[in-house]
Amino acid sequence: MKKALILLGCPESPSQTPLAVYAAYQLKKKGFEVTIAGTPSAMKLMEISDPEEHYLTCKIDIDSCLVALDEGSYDFLLGFAHKDAAVSYFVTFYHILQVPSIAMVFEKDPQLLEEFENQVEESTGAKIVSARAYHNPTPLRVKLDRAIEEMVI
Amino acid sequence: MKKALILLGCPESPSQTPLAVYAAYQLKKKGFEVTIAGTPSAMKLMEISDPEEHYLTCKIDIDSCLVALDEGSYDFLLGFAHKDAAVSYFVTFYHILQVPSIAMVFEKDPQLLEEFENQVEESTGAKIVSARAYHNPTPLRVKLDRAIEEMVI
Repeated sequence: MKKALILLGCPESPSQTPLAVYAAYQLKKKGFEVTIAGTPSAMKLMEISDPEEHYLTCKIDIDSCLVALDEGSYDFLLGFAHKDAAVSYFVTFYHILQVPSIAMVFEKDPQLLEEFENQVEESTGAKIVSARAYHNPTPLRVKLDRAIEEMVI
Repeated sequence: MKKALILLGCPESPSQTPLAVYAAYQLKKKGFEVTIAGTPSAMKLMEISDPEEHYLTCKIDIDSCLVALDEGSYDFLLGFAHKDAAVSYFVTFYHILQVPSIAMVFEKDPQLLEEFENQVEESTGAKIVSARAYHNPTPLRVKLDRAIEEMVI
């Protein structure tokens, strides 16, 4: 079975947890076994967001995941890259895995948004899904649907 | 079947959507049919957070819900009251429904937290579940579990 990794950033955005559940759901429909990696706070939000584990079963601490990571450990990477630390994690995972990847970039501030987009673009070949979004997830959801459709046959 | 209403506040807090799913799950386990009411943005976050509707099936716009509301329309009220507007909605719903109620109050700023707690306490007889929380939902989850256990037999 193909394996996808979803990388969570810091949990300050109200859209991250819902969008991560949604992305897991879409990737599962495409035949992936989905693993989510994040910081302890981000993972606690994921856990209460899906208490019966309908959407997510494989959950792992981001640093433990990184320590065990090798080229091709997963077949697909989707990362939330909406803060400096999250961008750095995404770039690191991207270069170790070397698999088709999507970076989700969102920020209220248009200047910061551009900065994060540029950082991802300069350092990786990932498909970027971005929007000036904060608590309305629809623009990102629509773009994410398209990106998954284009990249995953 | 007993009916519970969960009232969402504005969706800026990263904990609200996960905690609302969790509360719906707990109330369902206690035998309630659960309805969630919120603003359009808050509801969009709920929708992508549970795309297969395992946790939430009854969703309604907060203003439409209010227009149709009568004393006893629901048997239990749980509201997120972490902003001025959310507190006002909660107080209004509380006084129309007149049923056992829980207010979830959370804020990073301790002064604002106290202000919201006082507003709820002065205007309602609701049980208050509060914590100085932002993106770690555990303190609120633990207190919510206890409050539901105490109030719902």
